[in-house]
Amino acid sequence: MYKVGIDVGGTKINFVLVRDSRVVKTQKIATPKNKEELIRIIGEWVEKSSRPIRGIGIGVPGPLNANKDLILNPPNLRILRNCPLAKIVAKKTGIKSRMENDANCFTLAEALLGAGKGAKIVFGITLGTGVGGGIVINKKIYQGAFGSAGEVGHMTIKFDGLKCGCGNYGCLEAYCSKNVHGDYGRMLGVGLASVINLLDPEVIVVGGGISNEYECFINEVKKEIKERAISPLSQKYVKIKKAALGEIAGAIGAALMA
Amino acid sequence: MYKVGIDVGGTKINFVLVRDSRVVKTQKIATPKNKEELIRIIGEWVEKSSRPIRGIGIGVPGPLNANKDLILNPPNLRILRNCPLAKIVAKKTGIKSRMENDANCFTLAEALLGAGKGAKIVFGITLGTGVGGGIVINKKIYQGAFGSAGEVGHMTIKFDGLKCGCGNYGCLEAYCSKNVHGDYGRMLGVGLASVINLLDPEVIVVGGGISNEYECFINEVKKEIKERAISPLSQKYVKIKKAALGEIAGAIGAALMA
Repeated sequence: MYKVGIDVGGTKINFVLVRDSRVVKTQKIATPKNKEELIRIIGEWVEKSSRPIRGIGIGVPGPLNANKDLILNPPNLRILRNCPLAKIVAKKTGIKSRMENDANCFTLAEALLGAGKGAKIVFGITLGTGVGGGIVINKKIYQGAFGSAGEVGHMTIKFDGLKCGCGNYGCLEAYCSKNVHGDYGRMLGVGLASVINLLDPEVIVVGGGISNEYECFINEVKKEIKERAISPLSQKYVKIKKAALGEIAGAIGAALMA
Repeated sequence: MYKVGIDVGGTKINFVLVRDSRVVKTQKIATPKNKEELIRIIGEWVEKSSRPIRGIGIGVPGPLNANKDLILNPPNLRILRNCPLAKIVAKKTGIKSRMENDANCFTLAEALLGAGKGAKIVFGITLGTGVGGGIVINKKIYQGAFGSAGEVGHMTIKFDGLKCGCGNYGCLEAYCSKNVHGDYGRMLGVGLASVINLLDPEVIVVGGGISNEYECFINEVKKEIKERAISPLSQKYVKIKKAALGEIAGAIGAALMA
């Protein structure tokens, strides 16, 4: 059976057609300026796939509500504010549709088929315009009590530090959503060490556009983790890995959770 | 059936005898100066309970190894360094014995019988000589991949801040393990907001000796959480509660997991 995965970003939309966890088709389209056009494009893509589609998964920039049927206030995709996109798509296509935070989709794909394959507890981090994160435990997205777990970008690494886009000071995102600077790896390492101390993951998968410069900052990240992870076992055994599925990871994850 | 719970602290040991999740007997004893005396006291307490004991649970200051059968390097209880205490107790008493980090035991007890009762995701924090933490999901301790999840005290809130006992700079513990000072609530709120952003718990239970001054700092904690929790739902619905089981919470949790 086939599933469609859609990753709706601020500038582009990635589509994938997946059969039994294998990608059989992909396409990238520029994000349209309005909601109606977006819904039309999605309907068209599903229709022209000419396959029996069992489910549609849609990854969107968070935050969503706890039921994951409403996009609350996406900073990088305002056309979808308060939009029940999955419900609209389901109605238009007649196919069961689900929505999920894009960083959660990314992490699910990497945990099941990518750099975190085989691990029981995977933390995924996406480094780009924003810093997102997701937690996958035993092959399932860990949602948290109110559907917003994994928001690593807004963990505080310096309470009186740089101003973040969210309005607070010292969030990890304030230090790690720009281009790679001299202290980038150190700041990212501080944040990931906190993730390790709290969540104790087996693998951390690093993705997003900035992960293309992985080799420039990863040694500093690992050095900081060695210093700040309190458990000698985590220090020694936690694996930090570059994402393996490329820019369609989010769309693949959306299909997998559909 | 009865279970014995033992919380071994730096200065005192709490014993509880539990039957069907009810405490039927408690006792507090000063922590002895050496391991042999500790083991003798434990054996004696179990014996004089004169009940058919089904299991013994022992809470100890972390960190433990991943199998939870070895205490690695307890900063506040050096007599137990590299000690397989549960194995020794099991051999001495002939009763199945398990060991667990004391903050995990505290959180388990509060999640099942205390301030977090009924919640699916409970985060517990103990404020004392050190700052410990534990995560209970669906009534079970979340261990993490290497057995060290929940170490909130060593999450970084200011990467170039105060020196912590662990040797790093800016850990939450460096700000919140002393007596309550002017900025105490704010610092604790910064740390707990990071916990909320990453883990998204339903309830946070605040315990440990310093929680006796809960009313002095809780408003500041809540204010900081309102500002720094990124999800509007978590901001609104996460519950911060004072621990309900008093100083025997750790021993009760030890019995529950035995």
